[in-house]
Amino acid sequence: MDLLKQKILNEGIVLPGNILKVDNFLNHQIDPQLMYEIGLAFADIFADMKITKILTIEASGIPPALMTGYIMKIPVVYAKKTEAANLDSDYLSAEVYSYTRKKSYIIRVSRNYLKSGDCVLLIDDFLANGQAVLGLSDLVDQAGACLAGAGIVIEKAFQQGGDRVRQRGIYVRSLARIEDMSGGTVQFCDE
Amino acid sequence: MDLLKQKILNEGIVLPGNILKVDNFLNHQIDPQLMYEIGLAFADIFADMKITKILTIEASGIPPALMTGYIMKIPVVYAKKTEAANLDSDYLSAEVYSYTRKKSYIIRVSRNYLKSGDCVLLIDDFLANGQAVLGLSDLVDQAGACLAGAGIVIEKAFQQGGDRVRQRGIYVRSLARIEDMSGGTVQFCDE
Repeated sequence: MDLLKQKILNEGIVLPGNILKVDNFLNHQIDPQLMYEIGLAFADIFADMKITKILTIEASGIPPALMTGYIMKIPVVYAKKTEAANLDSDYLSAEVYSYTRKKSYIIRVSRNYLKSGDCVLLIDDFLANGQAVLGLSDLVDQAGACLAGAGIVIEKAFQQGGDRVRQRGIYVRSLARIEDMSGGTVQFCDE
Repeated sequence: MDLLKQKILNEGIVLPGNILKVDNFLNHQIDPQLMYEIGLAFADIFADMKITKILTIEASGIPPALMTGYIMKIPVVYAKKTEAANLDSDYLSAEVYSYTRKKSYIIRVSRNYLKSGDCVLLIDDFLANGQAVLGLSDLVDQAGACLAGAGIVIEKAFQQGGDRVRQRGIYVRSLARIEDMSGGTVQFCDE
């Protein structure tokens, strides 16, 4: 997606430790018009898959997931990272290890909102080590739902998550795949 | 906003402790089409105020804030509740006490995304005790920005937050104001 890649090149900042800071438009300040374009791209990619539900994780997955759901006219569910007071006692849960934060956390989704009849599209802002996608996919399995695939805004293709997730048979499409940023500038995969 | 009130009456669940469970469409599963209508309503209310930025708190404030920003073509910033690895070291912060969770937490916004020239619209899903709005308003003050007002999806008008926030001179508009739900059913304020 050219608009997204241009935005990453213009406004993304590469920090030590393979961190790509895109909090100017993706995960702290959000550019709603760009999120809409991202939603259009995912809606186009996954148009024919009879998706009934979009699943993401709070908080940074919500903007691209919401816009995709808006365009596809499909409800969006976000897995929670904390045990909310108003969460049903009957929930699905999975453990996710965060390499960024160097600790595990539990993600939870009420059983009311993920069911065996669902055909689920996962959406997330980043794919790096793949733990979040695997955790979400685990919830989909537990619900007995079908997993249509995962739509990722930015994939760090030089890390192992993409391979790990695809080896599990999950269909992954990323709007921007980064081949390398070790020199301080972002290089995208040829596609 | 009639569509929202109808949705609350049809799908909201009143739980003991004055909890209104609306996680079927607002804060766990999200109805994107309803969020768009909510965004239209806020955009209409705050149309003439020369807003330059929308500010909310992760995670449940993001959906209504994002749609409002999309319609108004204004960037959205969400305050973070955890110290993210990629957050600037130079941030604004405020303490917010959560009556639901019975503990305080710190909200943070990078100084890059809230500045003295900004005219800020706060958006949140609920107004009950007012702590979140006051915390966000504190961040706006610290940035030297101007606060245009606060757009709230659901106000529990029987709790004190609305009065508390309005007494500070903050212009608040809520799309659904609940007068009472002590009997287990929701009654809206006459407006």
